[in-house]
Amino acid sequence: MYTTNKDRMTEKIEYFSKFGALEGGGITRLSLSAPALEARAEFAHRATALGMTVESDDVGNTYATLPGSEPGLKRIVMGSHVDSVRNGGNYDGIYGVLSSLEAVETIVTEKIPHRHPLTVMFWTNEEGARFEPSMMGSGIVLGKFEKEKMLDVVEVGGKETFGSALEKSGWIGDVKNRLSKENYCAYFEPHIEQGPVLEEEGLEIGVVEGVVGMVNYDIILEGVSSHAGTTPQSYRKDALRAAAKTILDLWEKLGQLPSDLVFTTGEIFCKPNIHTVVPNYVKFKLDARHKDMAVLAQVVDVIKNLPKDVYGCKLSYEEHWGRTSIAFDERQIGFIEGAAKELGYTYKRMYSGAGHDAQYVSEMLPAVMIFIPSKDGLSHTVVEHSTADQVWRGANVLLNAVLAADRAL
Amino acid sequence: MYTTNKDRMTEKIEYFSKFGALEGGGITRLSLSAPALEARAEFAHRATALGMTVESDDVGNTYATLPGSEPGLKRIVMGSHVDSVRNGGNYDGIYGVLSSLEAVETIVTEKIPHRHPLTVMFWTNEEGARFEPSMMGSGIVLGKFEKEKMLDVVEVGGKETFGSALEKSGWIGDVKNRLSKENYCAYFEPHIEQGPVLEEEGLEIGVVEGVVGMVNYDIILEGVSSHAGTTPQSYRKDALRAAAKTILDLWEKLGQLPSDLVFTTGEIFCKPNIHTVVPNYVKFKLDARHKDMAVLAQVVDVIKNLPKDVYGCKLSYEEHWGRTSIAFDERQIGFIEGAAKELGYTYKRMYSGAGHDAQYVSEMLPAVMIFIPSKDGLSHTVVEHSTADQVWRGANVLLNAVLAADRAL
Repeated sequence: MYTTNKDRMTEKIEYFSKFGALEGGGITRLSLSAPALEARAEFAHRATALGMTVESDDVGNTYATLPGSEPGLKRIVMGSHVDSVRNGGNYDGIYGVLSSLEAVETIVTEKIPHRHPLTVMFWTNEEGARFEPSMMGSGIVLGKFEKEKMLDVVEVGGKETFGSALEKSGWIGDVKNRLSKENYCAYFEPHIEQGPVLEEEGLEIGVVEGVVGMVNYDIILEGVSSHAGTTPQSYRKDALRAAAKTILDLWEKLGQLPSDLVFTTGEIFCKPNIHTVVPNYVKFKLDARHKDMAVLAQVVDVIKNLPKDVYGCKLSYEEHWGRTSIAFDERQIGFIEGAAKELGYTYKRMYSGAGHDAQYVSEMLPAVMIFIPSKDGLSHTVVEHSTADQVWRGANVLLNAVLAADRAL
Repeated sequence: MYTTNKDRMTEKIEYFSKFGALEGGGITRLSLSAPALEARAEFAHRATALGMTVESDDVGNTYATLPGSEPGLKRIVMGSHVDSVRNGGNYDGIYGVLSSLEAVETIVTEKIPHRHPLTVMFWTNEEGARFEPSMMGSGIVLGKFEKEKMLDVVEVGGKETFGSALEKSGWIGDVKNRLSKENYCAYFEPHIEQGPVLEEEGLEIGVVEGVVGMVNYDIILEGVSSHAGTTPQSYRKDALRAAAKTILDLWEKLGQLPSDLVFTTGEIFCKPNIHTVVPNYVKFKLDARHKDMAVLAQVVDVIKNLPKDVYGCKLSYEEHWGRTSIAFDERQIGFIEGAAKELGYTYKRMYSGAGHDAQYVSEMLPAVMIFIPSKDGLSHTVVEHSTADQVWRGANVLLNAVLAADRAL
C-alpha cells in the first residue's frame, strides 16, 4: 500500500484556506469570485509544476492531466469543487480537489507506475450559492441544465450573470474538453461527510455507495386571521397551531418508516406573522431522503394521507421537487472498500444524504465517493473541520483506489 | 328615548371612507398623513358648522365642544381616533368619532336640552402603524409615554419623526387643552368589536366593562443546526420540532384555564430557515389576555413550568411586555347598559380584548366603551364591516347614554 505525505496534505488545506478567508476562520469563496479565481490559479500552478496539462471546458470545469504509461487508455479522473457557500468552511469541496492533487503528487514524486492518464478536476459552481442552482457545472455537462439558460442566471443579491462572470474569469475553454465517456473511464470524488455518522460511530472512512433520493414538499395550512385579543379560542382557525400539529404528526408517522430515512421541516413561513393576529396561512417544507425510492413513496403516502382539516384549517400540499436515488458503480465501490481495508482503516458503506457532482457523473461514468468524518457533523459553516489524520487517510484511500482502478481497468 | 339620523350617520361613514381610500375598498390613513389631515379638516369643518369650538392640545389630540346650558359644569367627552393601520377598514377608530359627531348633530338639530358642555374628540396616532407605539396621543396625556421621546420617534419605513410630522400638520395646539380632570367629567368611546362574539351570539350592542390584561412572552427553543440529508433523526436537536411541541403543549395547558382566556402564538422566527438545514433556533411569541390578572398569573405559571428540554433543545422564555386589566367605571357602564335596554337592543356586558385609548383615559376619568358587531369578527383589514343598522344603533346608545350622564352628573 502507498501513502500520501501528511505534511504536504496539511499544507495544501492550510494554503488554500486563505483564498476567501474570513476573520475568525472559514471562508467565503463563491463561484468565480476573486478568491475562487485565486484558488483556481494556485491549483493550475501546482498541477503544472507536477507535469500535468491543465485544460478547461466551455463552462470553466477544469481538468489537469498527468500522462500514463500506456497509450490509448482513457483517463481516470478524481476531484470535486473549489467554491464554497457564504461563511463556509475549509473542507467542503476543496478537500476533494486537494486530496486528488496530493495523490498525484505522491505518484509523481514517488514515481509510482500507472497505465492510465490521471486527471484531477474541479467543477464550476457546485454550491449554487452565487448562481443557482447548485451542481451547475456538472449539471450542464450531464445535460441536466441547458447551458444557454444557465449563462443568463443572475447572481444572488447582485446583477452579474453566470455567463458574464465566466467570461471575465478567463477560465472558458473548449467544449471538447468536457468530461466524456470517450475520454474518461472512472470518477472518484473524496468529500467530507457533512454529517455525524462516521464521527459518532468512531469510523475513519465512509465508502459511499450512492446518493439518497429525495422528495421535497410544501405543506400548507390555511385558517382565518383574527384579532388575538377579541377572538375566543373556540372560534379560531389558527394556521400555526395546525402546522405545529402537522409537523409532530409527520415526525410520528415518518418515524415508523425505516430508521435510516431522514426528514426535515427546516423552513416555515407564517402570515401575517404579527403577535396580535391569529395566523391565517402557514407553509412549511418537508424534505425527506432515502436510498430506496420505495421508502420515499411511503413518505409521499404519509403526506397524501394527512388529514385535510387540522383544527379547522385546510391542509394542502405541493410537490416542490425531488431526485431519484443514485447507486454508485459496484466495481468503483470495491476499489474504495479494498483500499480502506488494506490500509487497515475502520470504515462503513453508507449513502450520501447530500447531493454531489458525483451523482450526475455516475450517469456517464463508473463513479464513487469517499467520505471522511466531519467534526460534530457540521458543514456549510466556518467551524467545519476534519483532523489532519482524517484528511490524510482519505487521500491514502483515494491514492490506492485509483491505483487499483489503474491496474484493473 | 332619542335616536340619531340613520341616513346622516351612513353618510358620515361613507364620506370619511374616501380619506385614504384604497382601490377595491378599505383605507390606509396613517396618523398625520395627508389623508388623515383631510379627515381632521373635514371633522373640524363639520363640528364648527354645528356651533362647536375646535381646539387641539400640544400633541394634536383634538376636541370640539358644544356649550351646555349650565355654566361651571365640566365637559362630557366622547370620541376615538381618525387614523388607521395600513390596509385598514372604514370603521376602526373613525366610527367612534363619527357616531359622537352624529349624537351631537342630533342634539343640535333637535335642540335637545343638555346641561354639560359636550365634547367630541379624536386622539392622535392611536394605531401606532406609522409611529410606534400605539395609543401615543392618549399615552402622552395620561403620562404613559414621555412627550419628548415620542417627538423623536421615526416613522416605520421612513425618515420623518413624529415631532416633525406634527409640526408640519398644523394641528399643534395648547398643552392647556389636554383632556384633564379639571375640565372633563366623563368619557365615552364607541368602537367596533373587532371580534366575532356579538355577531356569533346575534347581539346588537356590547356594553364594555373593561379592557383585559395581557402578558406577552417570547419563547425560545435552541437546538443544533445540521444537514438535512446527512443527520440521522436520532442525532437531531430540531428547534422547530421542539417549538411545534411547545405550541401544542401551551394549547393543551392553557386550554384548561377559564374558557374566556384568549392566547395566541401569532409570530414565529426560525433560523436558518433553509429547507435543507435542521433549524437551530426558533422564537415564537405568546400573547395571552384575560380580565382577571389572577388568570394571567396562571398563564405565567404554565410558561414557567414548561419543560426546559424539548427533544434535546433548550427552552427559555423572556417577558416581552404586559398590561394590567382595566375595569371601567360602573356608573358609566350603567349609562350604556340603561340606554341599550331602554332602546330595546339586545346586548351583553363584555371585556375588550383589544387595547383602546379608553383604557388610559379610565385612569383619569370615569370612562366606558360601546361595541357594535364586526362582520366575521374582522378588523385591521379592508373588508372590515358593520351594517348601517349596527352603526346607527351604536350611535343611538351613545346619544342616550350621554344624555343620561348629562342628567346624572
